[in-house]
Amino acid sequence: MSDQAVRVGVIGLGTVGQGVLRLLQGNAEEIQRRVGRPVIVTDASARDLTRQRDCDTGTVKLWQDAVALAREADVDIVVELIGGQTVAREATLAAIARGKPVVTANKALLAEGGNEIFEAARAQNVAVAFEAAVAGGIPIVKAIREGLAGNVIDTVAGIINGTCNYILTQMTEKGESFDGALAVAQKLGYAEADPTFDVEGIDAAHKLAILASIAFGIPLCFDKISVEGIRGVTPEDIKIAQVFGYRIKLLGIAKRGGAGVELRVHPTLIPDDTLLAKVDGVLNSVVVHGNAVGQVGFYGAGAGGNATASAVIADIVDVARALDAAPEQAVPPLAFQPEALKALPVMPVRDAASAFYLRLQVADEPGVLSQLTAILASHDISVEAILQREPRGGDDAIVALITSVIPQHHFEGAVAEMQALPFVHGSAVSLRVEKLD
Amino acid sequence: MSDQAVRVGVIGLGTVGQGVLRLLQGNAEEIQRRVGRPVIVTDASARDLTRQRDCDTGTVKLWQDAVALAREADVDIVVELIGGQTVAREATLAAIARGKPVVTANKALLAEGGNEIFEAARAQNVAVAFEAAVAGGIPIVKAIREGLAGNVIDTVAGIINGTCNYILTQMTEKGESFDGALAVAQKLGYAEADPTFDVEGIDAAHKLAILASIAFGIPLCFDKISVEGIRGVTPEDIKIAQVFGYRIKLLGIAKRGGAGVELRVHPTLIPDDTLLAKVDGVLNSVVVHGNAVGQVGFYGAGAGGNATASAVIADIVDVARALDAAPEQAVPPLAFQPEALKALPVMPVRDAASAFYLRLQVADEPGVLSQLTAILASHDISVEAILQREPRGGDDAIVALITSVIPQHHFEGAVAEMQALPFVHGSAVSLRVEKLD
Repeated sequence: MSDQAVRVGVIGLGTVGQGVLRLLQGNAEEIQRRVGRPVIVTDASARDLTRQRDCDTGTVKLWQDAVALAREADVDIVVELIGGQTVAREATLAAIARGKPVVTANKALLAEGGNEIFEAARAQNVAVAFEAAVAGGIPIVKAIREGLAGNVIDTVAGIINGTCNYILTQMTEKGESFDGALAVAQKLGYAEADPTFDVEGIDAAHKLAILASIAFGIPLCFDKISVEGIRGVTPEDIKIAQVFGYRIKLLGIAKRGGAGVELRVHPTLIPDDTLLAKVDGVLNSVVVHGNAVGQVGFYGAGAGGNATASAVIADIVDVARALDAAPEQAVPPLAFQPEALKALPVMPVRDAASAFYLRLQVADEPGVLSQLTAILASHDISVEAILQREPRGGDDAIVALITSVIPQHHFEGAVAEMQALPFVHGSAVSLRVEKLD
Repeated sequence: MSDQAVRVGVIGLGTVGQGVLRLLQGNAEEIQRRVGRPVIVTDASARDLTRQRDCDTGTVKLWQDAVALAREADVDIVVELIGGQTVAREATLAAIARGKPVVTANKALLAEGGNEIFEAARAQNVAVAFEAAVAGGIPIVKAIREGLAGNVIDTVAGIINGTCNYILTQMTEKGESFDGALAVAQKLGYAEADPTFDVEGIDAAHKLAILASIAFGIPLCFDKISVEGIRGVTPEDIKIAQVFGYRIKLLGIAKRGGAGVELRVHPTLIPDDTLLAKVDGVLNSVVVHGNAVGQVGFYGAGAGGNATASAVIADIVDVARALDAAPEQAVPPLAFQPEALKALPVMPVRDAASAFYLRLQVADEPGVLSQLTAILASHDISVEAILQREPRGGDDAIVALITSVIPQHHFEGAVAEMQALPFVHGSAVSLRVEKLD
C-alpha cells in the first residue's frame, strides 16, 4: 500500500483546479518526500473539455459529468472545486456515499449545507476537508482546529474577503469612491462582473460560519449571521476614521461569551496600530484569541489559483495519510467530536456591544454640539473621540464621534433621538468599532 | 479504548509545566469535546516537590527523578519541559526506548541532538512532537509541516526570540542603549539574569535549525548556522535605519536556492512597512514563502507559561489521536519522511547575498564622499540610500548607506578598502538588510 500512488479526482478545472494539477505535477518530488508516496491526479471533470488550460491533462482521464466522476472514478480522494450548491452538493454526497473522502474549497456549500454533508461523512466514516474554503492559502482551519486545541477560544475575527479588502484599501489610499474602486478591482480580476456575493458580505459570512463552528464547537449556522457589506462605506468616513486613528475593514467577527455567540460581518473601524489594520490589498488575515495562547494572527493570500491550491493539496496530504485511520484517530472535521457539537444561542446583533462610530450632518447653528452630547450623556454613552468640521460654502457641518462600548440597541436609541432633532439633516452614518485586544 | 483518559506525565513543573496542568484542568471540558476522551496529567516530576505552585497537583503522582518518571510512570505520553540537554535528553530517550511518545518544548535538545532523538523515535515507532519548541503559542511547526505541505518552501524568516525583540523595541521606541533596555527586560522577567543565550542569538538559532529542517527536509544542523546577536546594535543605527525607512529586528533566516541553503541569525534591517517590522515587544512572528502559497505570516506570543502550554497541549492532542496509528499514517516529525531527509550544502555566510547597511565615522574633509562612493563603484556596488550627518562640536561626521544586493565577501572587500582610508576613523558598522518579499 505505502508505495502506491494516492489517486486524486478533481472536479472542476477552473483557476484552482488547474493550480492543483500544476502544483501536484511541479512539486511532485517534494510532496512525495513528505507523504512517502506519489500523489497524482488520475481523473478530472470539466464542463468544457476542449478548453485550453494552464496545466497538463495528458495522463488524466477527463469527465464531463462531475457527479459521474464522483460516483465512478477509480480514485482515493475526490476534490470538489466547482463551487455552487447544486452539482457540487450532489457530487460531494455521491463521493461520500461510496466511501470516498472529499476535499473541497466550497465555503457556500459547507456554510449552508455543511451539517448535512458532515453527517453523511460521519455515517460513512470518510473525511471531508476544507482548508481552502477559508482564507485561501492561510492554514487557518488547521491552526484553529489542531494548533489551538488546548484553548477555549473566545474570539475569531478577520479580513476574509480579498475583494472587499482590495476595494477598501483603494478607497483609503487613493480616496476613490466605492464604485470607482470596484471598477478597478473588476478590471484586475479581483472582483466578479456581478460583485454582489463579495461586496454584500455574503462570502465573508460563509467563511465566518465555518470559522465559528471550528472555534466554538457549534453546528454551522450561516443563516444566523448578521451581514452588512461595504457598499455604504464612503471615502469621507474612511478619512474621518483615519483622523481618529482607525482604518475601516470588512471584518467577520465571531465572539463567544456568557450570553451565547455573536456572529457578524460588517465594515469595522479598527485601530490603525494593530497588525490587522495593516493587512491591505487582496490579502486576508485572521486573528484568534484563546484563553491559553492569547492573541495569534495569520495573514497571506486569501484567493488565487495557486494559493488556494496550496490549501487543497495540504488537505489531500492529510486525507491521504488518514485513509485507513480508525474514526477515533481522525481529527474531527469541525474540530470537535460530532456528538460534542453543541448549538449556542446566537445573540441578536442589536444586543451585541461594541464602540460605535457616528457621523451626522448638522446645520451650522449654536448649541448643536451641546444638544447632541446631552443626548449621549442621557443614554450613559461616553464620547471617546469627536470631530466637528466647519461647513464649506453653505454646506452643513459634519459631526463625527466614537462612543464608549455599548449594546447596539442602546446606541440606536440615542441615534434615533439625535436624528429627530431639527438641525440634524440627512441620515446618520453608523459603523462599529472593534479594538480586538 | 476511546473512553479511557489519555494519561500524561509531565517532566518539569516550571512556568510551562504549571501552565500545562492548569490548562488541562481548566479547559478539560473543551479539550474532551475535541479529543473525545479526557486528557489528564497523572504524573509529574520536579526537583523540589515542596515548592508552592500555581496549579493543582492533588491527584498527580509526583516524582523527584525525571528519568524515573520517563522510565516507569504508567502514562500514554511523556511531556518534557525541563530544558537543557542532559537530564532532558536522558528522560526523552528513556521514554522513547519503552515506546512512549514524547512532547517537548526543548529547542536546544532538538536543534543540537534532534537527529539522534528522531532516529530513536523512528526505531520505536513513537511520535516526538515539538510545536512548543518554536515561537511559543504560534502553531508554526504544524503550519509549515502540514498546512503548507503542497509547497516547495524557499524562505522561512522570523522574529523568534521575544527577549531580543523586546530589547530592540525598547531601544527603538525609547532611544535606550542596549544595556538599559536589557536591564528593563530583566526587571520585567523578559530576560534571564544571564541573558547570553538570548541576546547572542543562540536561542533563535536553535529555533531556526528546527524551522529549516521542517521547511526544506534537511537534517537538523544547528552547528552550521551563522549566528550574530544584538549586543552590537546601537540606538544610533536604529535611528539612522528609521530615516532610511527600516526597522532593526533580530531575524532567523533560512533560504533555499540553487547553491544550497543559507542559515543565519543576525540583526537585520527590514522595511518598516512590512508586517514583520510591526511585530514589537515580546511577540514573535514568522513568515514563510512557498511556491504555491506565496508569502504567509504568523504572529503571537513567543513565550510565557500559558502560550507555550497551548502548543504543548496541541501536541498532546495530536499524539493522543495517533497513539495507535500505523507509521505511514503518522505525520513525520520533521515534515518529510525520515528516509527522504536530505542534507543540502549550507552556504558559507560570506557568500550569502543581501543588501547591506554601512555606517562609517569620517573626518570632516572635502572629497570624503567621492572617495567612498568611488570604492563602492569600483566593486560594482550601487548605493540605494545614503546619509551624511555633519559633525557636532569637533566630532567626526557620520556617513551611513544602504547598498544594492551583493554577496557578503564582496561587500567586505569594499569595506576593508574604505576602512584603510586615512579619514575613516573607528570601525565600520555593517548590518544586513532584507526585503523579504
